[in-house]
Amino acid sequence: MAGCETPVCHISERGGLIVQTLGDNPTIITYGTFDLFHVGHARLLRRLSALGKRLIVGCSTDEFNAGKGKRTAIPYHHRVEILQSCRYVSKVIPENSWDQKRRDIVKYKVGLFAMGSDWAGKFDELNDLCDVIYLPRTQDVSTTELKELIQRMRVDKVA
Amino acid sequence: MAGCETPVCHISERGGLIVQTLGDNPTIITYGTFDLFHVGHARLLRRLSALGKRLIVGCSTDEFNAGKGKRTAIPYHHRVEILQSCRYVSKVIPENSWDQKRRDIVKYKVGLFAMGSDWAGKFDELNDLCDVIYLPRTQDVSTTELKELIQRMRVDKVA
Repeated sequence: MAGCETPVCHISERGGLIVQTLGDNPTIITYGTFDLFHVGHARLLRRLSALGKRLIVGCSTDEFNAGKGKRTAIPYHHRVEILQSCRYVSKVIPENSWDQKRRDIVKYKVGLFAMGSDWAGKFDELNDLCDVIYLPRTQDVSTTELKELIQRMRVDKVA
Repeated sequence: MAGCETPVCHISERGGLIVQTLGDNPTIITYGTFDLFHVGHARLLRRLSALGKRLIVGCSTDEFNAGKGKRTAIPYHHRVEILQSCRYVSKVIPENSWDQKRRDIVKYKVGLFAMGSDWAGKFDELNDLCDVIYLPRTQDVSTTELKELIQRMRVDKVA
């Protein structure tokens, strides 16, 4: 894999990740909306940050989400600020197009491109630039489930 | 104020905070539920952490909240994990009683007890142990408003 002198990870037969140290490109990048920051986000970012020296997060803008018919509870600038407050995140950049990933990988000298396993296989074509992995999501925790839970709660019962 | 050799802050006539450096007790403590971690939480914690060297957060347990008739969207252990992922927070402890604050202040050698301004005046009696301040909340951002917003959203319109 060009750009990565040291293999970063292997998927074991049982699906467990065996991760080796990142070599000359200790920067990791991931992308997402990170709406309603929850423990699944925090755990994913913690595990990613442990794989290298610097974790860059591409945070989907409201305009980019709108183009996908996706509406968030939290506006972009607040989602960015929350990501910036996360100790596992080194830098937040806007994600505003599908095709920026190749440019970002080159620009930030990324050694590892990582996404949640709900995207498994979708970004394999980037592995001519760097390693690509998909990490398992925290079970039973997602923004969608959280929104559904809140919608089932009565406002006057919560605070 | 016993326990704090250096005055920590003064409230100016216009309500603006003029904060001096914390002296011998550079530890700050605050308490809260921190349900649905949002930008108001992140900003409050950032501002508090800037006032000293160590910020301790007492996170209300589910049992403590239940006793107040308060139900959260996010369970206690997840709220703790999210607070621990916040770069402005040094330590998270459980808040499970009203009367633990005096003990915590002594135990952790706290120099500054700080709460959001919605609690203004409610903890002034602690100022025999340390300084007490109330910081303004971020306008238009609260867990309750967030829940109401999500409840107005249709699940099938969000992701």
